[in-house]
Amino acid sequence: MLRTHTCGELRADHAGEEVTLCGWVDSSREHGLGLVFIDIRDRYGKTQVVAAPQGGDAVMEAARKLRSEDVIQVRGEVAPRLEGTSNDKLATGQIEVRILEIKKLNDSQTPPFTPTQQDLPSEDLRLRYRYLDLRRPEMQRTMLLRSRIIKLMRDYFDVHQFIDVETPILGRSTPEGARDYLVPSRVHPGKFYALPQSPQLYKQILMMAGYDRYVQVARCFRDEDLRADRQPEFTQLDVEMSFIDTEDIVGMIDGLVAKLAKELLDIEVTLPLQRMTYDEAMERFGHDAPDLRFGMELIDCSDVAAECSFRVFKGAVDGGGKVRGINGKGAAASYSRKKIDELTELVQNDFGAKGLAWFRVEEDGTLFSPIAKQFQPEELEKIKERMQAEPGDLLLFIADKWEVTCKALYGLRKRLGAELKLYDPNQMHFSWIVEFPMFAWDEEEKRWDAMHHPFTAPRDEDLQYLESDPGKCRAKAYDLVINGSEAGGGTIRIHDSAVQAKVFELLGMSDETARERFGFLLDALQFGAPPHGGIALGIDRVVMLFGKLDNIRDCIAFPKTQKAADMMTGAPGQVDTRQLRELSVKVVSE
Amino acid sequence: MLRTHTCGELRADHAGEEVTLCGWVDSSREHGLGLVFIDIRDRYGKTQVVAAPQGGDAVMEAARKLRSEDVIQVRGEVAPRLEGTSNDKLATGQIEVRILEIKKLNDSQTPPFTPTQQDLPSEDLRLRYRYLDLRRPEMQRTMLLRSRIIKLMRDYFDVHQFIDVETPILGRSTPEGARDYLVPSRVHPGKFYALPQSPQLYKQILMMAGYDRYVQVARCFRDEDLRADRQPEFTQLDVEMSFIDTEDIVGMIDGLVAKLAKELLDIEVTLPLQRMTYDEAMERFGHDAPDLRFGMELIDCSDVAAECSFRVFKGAVDGGGKVRGINGKGAAASYSRKKIDELTELVQNDFGAKGLAWFRVEEDGTLFSPIAKQFQPEELEKIKERMQAEPGDLLLFIADKWEVTCKALYGLRKRLGAELKLYDPNQMHFSWIVEFPMFAWDEEEKRWDAMHHPFTAPRDEDLQYLESDPGKCRAKAYDLVINGSEAGGGTIRIHDSAVQAKVFELLGMSDETARERFGFLLDALQFGAPPHGGIALGIDRVVMLFGKLDNIRDCIAFPKTQKAADMMTGAPGQVDTRQLRELSVKVVSE
Repeated sequence: MLRTHTCGELRADHAGEEVTLCGWVDSSREHGLGLVFIDIRDRYGKTQVVAAPQGGDAVMEAARKLRSEDVIQVRGEVAPRLEGTSNDKLATGQIEVRILEIKKLNDSQTPPFTPTQQDLPSEDLRLRYRYLDLRRPEMQRTMLLRSRIIKLMRDYFDVHQFIDVETPILGRSTPEGARDYLVPSRVHPGKFYALPQSPQLYKQILMMAGYDRYVQVARCFRDEDLRADRQPEFTQLDVEMSFIDTEDIVGMIDGLVAKLAKELLDIEVTLPLQRMTYDEAMERFGHDAPDLRFGMELIDCSDVAAECSFRVFKGAVDGGGKVRGINGKGAAASYSRKKIDELTELVQNDFGAKGLAWFRVEEDGTLFSPIAKQFQPEELEKIKERMQAEPGDLLLFIADKWEVTCKALYGLRKRLGAELKLYDPNQMHFSWIVEFPMFAWDEEEKRWDAMHHPFTAPRDEDLQYLESDPGKCRAKAYDLVINGSEAGGGTIRIHDSAVQAKVFELLGMSDETARERFGFLLDALQFGAPPHGGIALGIDRVVMLFGKLDNIRDCIAFPKTQKAADMMTGAPGQVDTRQLRELSVKVVSE
Repeated sequence: MLRTHTCGELRADHAGEEVTLCGWVDSSREHGLGLVFIDIRDRYGKTQVVAAPQGGDAVMEAARKLRSEDVIQVRGEVAPRLEGTSNDKLATGQIEVRILEIKKLNDSQTPPFTPTQQDLPSEDLRLRYRYLDLRRPEMQRTMLLRSRIIKLMRDYFDVHQFIDVETPILGRSTPEGARDYLVPSRVHPGKFYALPQSPQLYKQILMMAGYDRYVQVARCFRDEDLRADRQPEFTQLDVEMSFIDTEDIVGMIDGLVAKLAKELLDIEVTLPLQRMTYDEAMERFGHDAPDLRFGMELIDCSDVAAECSFRVFKGAVDGGGKVRGINGKGAAASYSRKKIDELTELVQNDFGAKGLAWFRVEEDGTLFSPIAKQFQPEELEKIKERMQAEPGDLLLFIADKWEVTCKALYGLRKRLGAELKLYDPNQMHFSWIVEFPMFAWDEEEKRWDAMHHPFTAPRDEDLQYLESDPGKCRAKAYDLVINGSEAGGGTIRIHDSAVQAKVFELLGMSDETARERFGFLLDALQFGAPPHGGIALGIDRVVMLFGKLDNIRDCIAFPKTQKAADMMTGAPGQVDTRQLRELSVKVVSE
């Protein structure tokens, strides 16, 4: 090693030792007394090294010439800092190193930004010079957190006898769900591999092969138009178990969550984590990944609305819709007409609601609202009662199709929860949403879609509805929700080939299509498939949640932009025509 | 869980307990006394369960109907086996489970082969029904070994403060080395991603970003025509360190090797592992990955040959070539003329040698050979002396260009070593070959090629030859050799942009080309790049060597054939024209 210690290692009891450090010049300043103080930085910390005239002219000259981000090797003697000059914010702040020799290992040109500068450069610049951006202490903390999270996960599953199996990246395209990334085959002209959207089928195959407990930190790919929190390639913790039912896998992940919370944040989590059915989550929070750090639940007023004189409310219920509301406790004062207009725009633009009805509860208990006079006094009383309204509250209502009331009130609740600071942002809330519907009705295509994927098993008691009333069928499905974000989800799989055939049929997939796409899985089901199920957690998301970050690109060392490009390397790039010719493909324009 | 214990868990002291097991019917046989013995199998082992008339008719009937590979759940009572019937080969061989209830969890049709059948099915069948093949105990052992090796590696580097960073799979094509797999970009029509041949540039960037110690178990891709031991996608242990020189990284891997040997095979390895220079390896063994489990070193007789009367020997040396040989100690008796003819064919067909000269040392010490009479007696004496020949030895000589003598004698040594059983196949020999040449002269293109890759640093003392005599330049390069196989290799990298520019120039790469291909790396070198270096080990290869296997496909859960196809899923496959249209590509035939 070119060093004896790292830049985060020296303490007061190293005083008197001769040491050698290597690192980057973080900052340097010349002191009136002819001393040059240099902060030298590496992944482990910062150490102050000092060039003094006693060190000799060569040292002084070299020290004076140093520039930000130069890479240096320094030999010197550890000395306690003078009283009053120690730095308690720095782990090495009790000492300094008096330089005996400086060797410059490499120069740095003036960088477009420095890792410790106050204001963050633009994201374009950060992505283009990712090697500089990754020097920033925040990025290093996140990358170390990510590495630690993944290590904790692997250790946890290792203790529980899971086997880590690598599944192929060059797989087969199954035109289902999102778009596949395709890879032309040179050896088989006209044929293509597909990059996996998940190792789903392989992990099921591994259960059929008797591996019993499988885990993999797996790279997955989706060629989607990227939303802010999506990446073309992402990493998931992929888990599968045999001879289990829902509670076994959910309980296994409970243990993982508790371990992560304890090790990373020193939070004691009470197990089992809360389980809530999908139906209850939609009813109480309007969403299948509710933020349970605060209340402000959705309250159904449809019965009251059905009998009221306000046409909009009554009309919504008469038309088969719902009138539901939330109560912003004590929020009346902080929501001016202008801010309420913004909320109206939010529900109209983002969630397709026709409008927002609101009431302010006055000091004397009366409800103030532009629409108040369209209600009879006793109707307003009923609303107040139902909403448990008290003076100072702000009541918000959506009268619309059930789905729209869910979405819009979910959006309002989220916004008010944040604006009213109804939760401690450092709190972590973990819960499970369970018993999702098996199928969702596709209004456009007039057919059932799998809510999760077509290998999901129905609850035993709902098998009877599979043909008679698919909409009633609930699945053995479970999502892990952290602070209102879906961190992952899974299902118990179908292991009975007759049930699998029925589900394919229900999804409008012909035997032929099913065979062509999933033939090997259907075959495998015939040769002794055990009951099995699993889960996948989004690791990028988990890092974001545990790291309290709000940009997924900050959780990934080399992310792509929303245009799926790598600003540093310039990928995707041009390739030689010779390369394409070998692959028997050709670029076509429009 | 649908079970209380696994099939590998029950011991004599469980006797009397009621247990529930799940697993596959491995075999069943009906006993004369109306008993049915069933071996039930899972990943953890096998347990004998017994259906007896006391268990009731339902149990007996169900037991009789069971077929191989059915999946069952059995509830029963653990009982010690009768004296004389225990099975010491089975961990659970002291007990059996007397069945109280059998539940069939799934049927199996008659499988094309059973996991425990004596003779291995054809590889085609094994790959097509991989889920059955993966049930074979040998495959399960290998997959568990692989998982364990990777876990040991990760734990080792974690203890040494390495950070695990995931580098992109969707990268940029650099038309160098092997062919890239390409991925058309939908968002950027006409542009392509490339799958990484290794994370080389990213790991160097991570060092420049200050990560200091990086590790990743990385998937890599090469679109090559596959040799027997290659796969289109493979896994490497990828490591990089900063502020180091050769001995630091080699020493770090020494520790890993010792840990793997101890934990996996209970072998104590003496550290440091042997280091041998490339020049010495070529001189003594004719190869840069010599099998050091046995001697039979190459002996140079060129000086003797130059002065002898045998025209072939003399001519080879006069023409600038070499005459080198090996001494098969005591091998004369076991190599008939016919077998020697086979050796001649081997060196001619596989290694391009013109021929093979051989001598048998007779009882009386005379050299017998068809060519013996073309030598003067004293020349034969000199040969005997040089070769330390004794009665019963077989001397083999190649007179050819130096390169050919290396290859052919390497091949002969390997063959004789195996045939003469010169080493214990269970022995493991680990060593390092170091100081490889920087460059190899490409005779066809009349230019220097990088022997490793163009980012490899020359030895400090050889920097002077970089321009004057590139062939003399030795690199800071090192290969780990296990039992005559290259298990991995690495180099210290160039961190000085002037040296990097010089190397690119020497390789005939223009500034413009270098910038276009590696611009971001060249930029990064300007902003404070630390001295750094690393290594990559082939994990498939390591599993093969530690698992004593001879087929790389047996080390991978879902391998591709030599035609790069997945027999189980049918990848690569046809895709919809719509998919291709979205990607702006088109298949062209010839």
